[in-house]
Amino acid sequence: MDNVNLKKLAEELNLAVSTVSRALRDNHEISQETKDRVKALAAKLGFQPNPHASSLRQNKSRTIAVVIPEIQNNFFSQVMNGVEDVAQRKGYHVLIYLTHDDHNREKEILQVLRNGRVDGLMISVSNTTTNIEHLEAYRQSGMPLVFFDRVCEEIDVPRVTTDDSIAAFKATEHLLKVGCKKIAFLSLACNLSISSGRRSGYLKALAKHGLDNEMIIECGTDDETNRQNIRELLQSDQRPDGIFAAVEKFAINTYEVCHELNIAIPQQLKLVGFSNLSAAALFDPPLSTIVQPAYEIGKEAATILFKIVEKKMLLPNEKRVMIASEIVERKSTGK
Amino acid sequence: MDNVNLKKLAEELNLAVSTVSRALRDNHEISQETKDRVKALAAKLGFQPNPHASSLRQNKSRTIAVVIPEIQNNFFSQVMNGVEDVAQRKGYHVLIYLTHDDHNREKEILQVLRNGRVDGLMISVSNTTTNIEHLEAYRQSGMPLVFFDRVCEEIDVPRVTTDDSIAAFKATEHLLKVGCKKIAFLSLACNLSISSGRRSGYLKALAKHGLDNEMIIECGTDDETNRQNIRELLQSDQRPDGIFAAVEKFAINTYEVCHELNIAIPQQLKLVGFSNLSAAALFDPPLSTIVQPAYEIGKEAATILFKIVEKKMLLPNEKRVMIASEIVERKSTGK
Repeated sequence: MDNVNLKKLAEELNLAVSTVSRALRDNHEISQETKDRVKALAAKLGFQPNPHASSLRQNKSRTIAVVIPEIQNNFFSQVMNGVEDVAQRKGYHVLIYLTHDDHNREKEILQVLRNGRVDGLMISVSNTTTNIEHLEAYRQSGMPLVFFDRVCEEIDVPRVTTDDSIAAFKATEHLLKVGCKKIAFLSLACNLSISSGRRSGYLKALAKHGLDNEMIIECGTDDETNRQNIRELLQSDQRPDGIFAAVEKFAINTYEVCHELNIAIPQQLKLVGFSNLSAAALFDPPLSTIVQPAYEIGKEAATILFKIVEKKMLLPNEKRVMIASEIVERKSTGK
Repeated sequence: MDNVNLKKLAEELNLAVSTVSRALRDNHEISQETKDRVKALAAKLGFQPNPHASSLRQNKSRTIAVVIPEIQNNFFSQVMNGVEDVAQRKGYHVLIYLTHDDHNREKEILQVLRNGRVDGLMISVSNTTTNIEHLEAYRQSGMPLVFFDRVCEEIDVPRVTTDDSIAAFKATEHLLKVGCKKIAFLSLACNLSISSGRRSGYLKALAKHGLDNEMIIECGTDDETNRQNIRELLQSDQRPDGIFAAVEKFAINTYEVCHELNIAIPQQLKLVGFSNLSAAALFDPPLSTIVQPAYEIGKEAATILFKIVEKKMLLPNEKRVMIASEIVERKSTGK
């Protein structure tokens, strides 16, 4: 690396390194004439201050970390777009970490990040996270922390989510309104808030319509296991006439099994799922979806994180932000 | 932030800060007994070295940057998975930057990264990049640099790509074999290698089969403009019986226009497109795709970048890596 550094500028100008450094930072002890000479040469040679020296001096890295389960998922990639837009505008850098829903990987990442590499962290918790000590330790270290989407209820930090329970209620009620009587819910098997929120919305909608025949099937990250669960469900005596998938992946698994078993959607089975995939409109048949405000969640979570980093006061409504999801009705529910 | 730092350790142990620092780095001037005492306390209090101090001392950040046009695109998100797997194993951090195919944004990002914030950079060039001075300046600064997927032919650095020309040849020949006589190519309007490679593969396949009726339609980032171009193409006297889309987005735009104009795929129009979307199998009808080895491209590009960062010698075949794409034949081409 043959970069222009403070030493080179100092030699060229016949000044002390400390003088050059202070001139560049507009220190009042340095004369205007010297400042002008230093800055002119710095500009001419394309000098860029060493970020590690600046970080060390200011105890700031101008970097935030985003920890997410997956990136190959439209929801999280749209979140990243929102985060990155805010970060670029503020001149911050964004480190990305993928946990692949592995609790241990998440723990290691947070451990490494407790040393001041970043000014703040936003995380969507892994669905295998049951022990939350690492999150609590991070919070206790006093480092700025914001949860988004998948949050830990027990840990009191600002959070940005969608209204999971209301969205799930809407999805289930939509299936009821198009005539379904036996609705199965494909749930994310974990202790996370999004899972319990979506489940409670499903149960509330059934209760409102006087139904108590809930069918909750727990699904996970492995496609083949999910397909096997769905296959058994659709081949059982208790075959549902509607399915509500808590996660896009489970809706895709349902299509696959229906194609395999020659079950016609929506004639024999109606289907709605959480999904941010715009190509859901091209599916055979087009999938009715609950679309989360992913870009907005990322943008809002980053905005709040920067407020904390910059020690600005949060408004009361910024501690628990909920942004509504939308239902998009398509042919998979007979529309 | 109430973290344990060198100063605190030194006070607690009644030692000089420099002694503690050297003890932690196993300096031979420090006695084993002192080292043991220092390390025991550091472990007990959960001391993590300040990464900026380490970076400054070692002139290394243990961080790489990945600059990509978009993240909301299965190809790039799969690339990120490959990069992140290698980086996590090597204990490196990954900064992500999105250019949104904006040449100026790309230029700014590279300018900021020339100051040693990262140990190396991998980039897939924006499709609006015509002036390549910023890339050449980065290369000349001597910082490790690797291109992947969208490369700049003029700049001599290692690159990892797929065999765009061969893949496009296969796609076009597939359309010819299923009976198409008039094949249009929806091309990415830019000066990038992937664009010229894919175009040349299309032209070679036509030439091999004795056809000279090429139809090249330039498309871009705006969906509505693309749909308008495709609409005009499909309503013209020269309506093609096959379309090869250079980019997934253009295949999706084609579906949208066909639904709108009631053109049946594959009966009236056969369609194949580059795409890494697994849900392409659920489209109506399922889309025949050229699938790029995205994860492998990310993994290979990161591996090569780390070799350069660690000053290891590259093998001759690591300077120009090409990984084959696969064709997946589905109903959109009559399979």
